[in-house]
Amino acid sequence: MRLYHSIHAPNARRVRIFLAEKGIEIPLVDVDLGELDHRQAAFRAVNPFETVPVLELDDGTIIAESVAICRYFEELTPTPNLFGSTPLERAEVEMWQRRAEFFLLLPIAQVLRHSHPAMAKLESPQVPDWAASNRVKAQAHFARFDATLEGRPFLAGERFSIADITGLVALDFSKPARLDIPEEFKNLRRWWVDLAARPGSVR
Amino acid sequence: MRLYHSIHAPNARRVRIFLAEKGIEIPLVDVDLGELDHRQAAFRAVNPFETVPVLELDDGTIIAESVAICRYFEELTPTPNLFGSTPLERAEVEMWQRRAEFFLLLPIAQVLRHSHPAMAKLESPQVPDWAASNRVKAQAHFARFDATLEGRPFLAGERFSIADITGLVALDFSKPARLDIPEEFKNLRRWWVDLAARPGSVR
Repeated sequence: MRLYHSIHAPNARRVRIFLAEKGIEIPLVDVDLGELDHRQAAFRAVNPFETVPVLELDDGTIIAESVAICRYFEELTPTPNLFGSTPLERAEVEMWQRRAEFFLLLPIAQVLRHSHPAMAKLESPQVPDWAASNRVKAQAHFARFDATLEGRPFLAGERFSIADITGLVALDFSKPARLDIPEEFKNLRRWWVDLAARPGSVR
Repeated sequence: MRLYHSIHAPNARRVRIFLAEKGIEIPLVDVDLGELDHRQAAFRAVNPFETVPVLELDDGTIIAESVAICRYFEELTPTPNLFGSTPLERAEVEMWQRRAEFFLLLPIAQVLRHSHPAMAKLESPQVPDWAASNRVKAQAHFARFDATLEGRPFLAGERFSIADITGLVALDFSKPARLDIPEEFKNLRRWWVDLAARPGSVR
């Protein structure tokens, strides 16, 4: 099998971190998003939705979408568990994975895509008002995550999970998006520092 | 247990359809989004992220996020299977669930939220350019889904899954968003008609 990815794509990084946490190594195929290679016929034959990451199995089967790829590896290599191990835990991890995705990663990515000059080719047309609106949304969500993380090491509770991977990738993406995470959000910042220090937190 | 929902919220409808397909009935608690009840202290104590649906278990445990709630019920009531039954099937269902969510439901909802006068209170500020941009994105995605559904009854293949529920809710949402699904997309329209005719496709 092999993984189509880009070193700059946050969704591809989610899978790279997930694999590192599992101790899995697989061949990577670089897709140059800056050159719009994901919109060329060769890559569209792999994924008509023009996104990375994509996992290609040895028989040619395609699994696109970061979380789908992670879930596949969770089943192949169940330890360490990153999706929860009881029905309730799995629901809670899914809840936090989605919250990290929709309330951190998505608004932060929208700020970057619609405000950064380097994204003008990838996101056309850029909508500056949408970037501005997402700056406000992101700050409101930072406050909610900070409150959640009071006295709690990880999003879904005591155990590191895929939800934290999404959160780390989102917060790291706040830098190129030029979004400040205020000092007052001590829990959020402590969580960010702890996640970034994990050996599995690869680029 | 009970489910906080709104009859107008597409994400709450995803859970209602999922439960109907499973033959599960649970008490519903209506949250009036038009009156912004989801932003009041009483509801924020249930879900600080101010979204429906939310499942409250008998011991007070909260599970928010549509797909997290569905996954919980999938484990409690595994038949009919709606998330896939092998590692590869589960990955494929997850892939299509996410594609239906990010490439149909999300852009269609963005058109509605940022263009419809009735949404001005819920989505403030509305960004008309963002609605316009999503109209274009949605049409491009319609073409991709139409191509996928050529000779295939459901998104993930031969079997109805949660991915189709997300797709149905998204396409039904195209009406208030005033987004046309062109006649030429025969596969997409056939799929829509078939899904809408299922006994489980409740409002």
